[in-house]
Amino acid sequence: MEQTAAITDDEIFAAHVGGKLALAPTAPLDTARALSIAYTPGVAKVSRAIAADPRLAARYTWAHRLVAVVSDGTAVLGLGDIGPRASLPVMEGKSALFKAYGGLDSIPIVLDTTDVEEIVETMVRLRPTFGAVNLEDVSAPRCFELERRLVEALDCPVMHDDQHGTAIVVLAALRGACTVLRRDMAPLKVVVAGAGAAGVACAKILLAAGVRDVVLTDSKGVVHAGRDGLNPIKAELAAVTNPRGITGELADAMVGADVLLGLSGATVSEESVATMAAGGIVFALSNPDPEIHPDVAARHAAVVATGRSDFPNQINNVLAFPGVFRGALDAGARRITEGMKLAAADAIFEVAAPTLALDRIVPSPLDAGVGPAVAAAVAEAARAEGVAS
Amino acid sequence: MEQTAAITDDEIFAAHVGGKLALAPTAPLDTARALSIAYTPGVAKVSRAIAADPRLAARYTWAHRLVAVVSDGTAVLGLGDIGPRASLPVMEGKSALFKAYGGLDSIPIVLDTTDVEEIVETMVRLRPTFGAVNLEDVSAPRCFELERRLVEALDCPVMHDDQHGTAIVVLAALRGACTVLRRDMAPLKVVVAGAGAAGVACAKILLAAGVRDVVLTDSKGVVHAGRDGLNPIKAELAAVTNPRGITGELADAMVGADVLLGLSGATVSEESVATMAAGGIVFALSNPDPEIHPDVAARHAAVVATGRSDFPNQINNVLAFPGVFRGALDAGARRITEGMKLAAADAIFEVAAPTLALDRIVPSPLDAGVGPAVAAAVAEAARAEGVAS
Repeated sequence: MEQTAAITDDEIFAAHVGGKLALAPTAPLDTARALSIAYTPGVAKVSRAIAADPRLAARYTWAHRLVAVVSDGTAVLGLGDIGPRASLPVMEGKSALFKAYGGLDSIPIVLDTTDVEEIVETMVRLRPTFGAVNLEDVSAPRCFELERRLVEALDCPVMHDDQHGTAIVVLAALRGACTVLRRDMAPLKVVVAGAGAAGVACAKILLAAGVRDVVLTDSKGVVHAGRDGLNPIKAELAAVTNPRGITGELADAMVGADVLLGLSGATVSEESVATMAAGGIVFALSNPDPEIHPDVAARHAAVVATGRSDFPNQINNVLAFPGVFRGALDAGARRITEGMKLAAADAIFEVAAPTLALDRIVPSPLDAGVGPAVAAAVAEAARAEGVAS
Repeated sequence: MEQTAAITDDEIFAAHVGGKLALAPTAPLDTARALSIAYTPGVAKVSRAIAADPRLAARYTWAHRLVAVVSDGTAVLGLGDIGPRASLPVMEGKSALFKAYGGLDSIPIVLDTTDVEEIVETMVRLRPTFGAVNLEDVSAPRCFELERRLVEALDCPVMHDDQHGTAIVVLAALRGACTVLRRDMAPLKVVVAGAGAAGVACAKILLAAGVRDVVLTDSKGVVHAGRDGLNPIKAELAAVTNPRGITGELADAMVGADVLLGLSGATVSEESVATMAAGGIVFALSNPDPEIHPDVAARHAAVVATGRSDFPNQINNVLAFPGVFRGALDAGARRITEGMKLAAADAIFEVAAPTLALDRIVPSPLDAGVGPAVAAAVAEAARAEGVAS
């Protein structure tokens, strides 16, 4: 694990002056010849060719491979609804990561509306500008409807990363942990603490991967079919999770559980972790403050992971999203399917497999091999599922 | 004048593969420390600070100095209404020029709607994403209403470059020509052939600069107050131009004229140019085909200019827009005033002044000194006019 001097606020703010992104021409424009090629009169030939055959836009513009990183600023990191302007540094960071780990250009689009209808309408009007949409930091449950509506409205890859990026990396990490522990994943009792964007998507991908006993909790306790006032998403999940019919609080669900997946921002006590089954797995993923300190959790669990770079086993979305979008765009995919997400998780696991250990259940977020491996797997899945072009 | 081998279509298309723009992080993201600063957890401090004081977005994001290059693809170069996808290579070229000659980042936004109301609504929703709007290649007369509505709706610099960029450079060039010819500009008889976006804006800036006798023509002939069916823009101009009450065709207006400003895409005959007053000025600016070949015009006129890089006196918007937006953003201007446009024209003229000649009435578009000079003059004008912040 990398050890570094403490990062100061001054250092953070200094690194953000003027923003974190810069655009550049792909070729110099300092001669009359270069101007005549990239601008008038040369560009007119390219525009005329695209007008005659719109498919040529994919070849002769950057839009076809450009990811729009779109947010309304309603659920930014753990900070909540801080608005589009305050969300922009996060979106710039995301665009920077797309380039660094996926080799993809992207532009942050921060919207001064939180109305799902208006956001969909806006992205439809902008459609010729980009080639894919990474939806980011949109609050639940609006994010579920917004993603569904955008997938329907746009003929290009759309993914809400807070849901699916997290779910992909969590699945890869759980496979890594199970392999290290020589345990099967399917019979594990998994508690997902938090039923927001990430919790819902993680529960769904674990079910899709064959885990049979997933229990979801939120601020009102365990999600079960008999609970009043469940929103449609939670009601849908109540029907397919919690097979033992657990009720009560998070602490009740944790008794005897094999896996705690913390995505809640809440605090989990050492006493509660101690009630889990022996040899368990704790992923305390809230940022910047994990649900329980990993050193404390390690007294009772066999494998512990967090979202932080200063502890082992960092579960970070950057392992997934650059490669997922890169693979989808490489394949010319019209959408991102469940199979493509599962393939991404497999690829992340496979990169980690040769060096798996209790403190290395996932690759490092800095591993430059992850993005290409995920991209290749996602592109192959897209072709196998018939969504490639 | 630079001589170059002919540019082939293959060369043009090869230069456009994948588009002409690339985004890059301003700092590497290859260490845990760099990730912790630019992304989580460091970025949360910046987002929280902006949420507490939205004015900090200007300092800690790229949006404040980012130009949105916006088009609906309805009047692209001389190609007409070829749509947003086919317009994108032009917008990418524009963004590349913003960087190369103004040091500004910008993003192309091409819209799948031509409805003025919808475009304004879209840009209002996108407002936190950018710091200025360069409107581009929108057809007349919609462009006039769209620009006016965007200026009203957005608290940032907005300029339709086809109008005002052209007008600024034409004014600078006419001052250059007059200086070389030792003539006053105010008493010149000027014929503006073409009453689209550029023609209307050129007529207005010439009037603002003191030219008293401007005659506008369109495809139906001379614009005069007695003509039926003038649209509101032309009716407004008819009231302040054409003081001698000329009627008829372009050829009628050209008899005895001192200046022909061609912005029409039409053809002007040598016979007609021969009827102009002696020692005249011909700017044949249509691209790629000037209204009259410059060598032919030169038989009858003292100064000839075109929009092309392969003849002397290239009148190209790149002399204006990078510096105009750079100056407006440097000054924190809330809008672009007429005074700022006149200051830009003055600055372009001043750069050319030391080396003025019959075949050098404007600086070369490749002159890297123009952008900074225009930016400084525009920023100073913004401060003088009280629109800076």
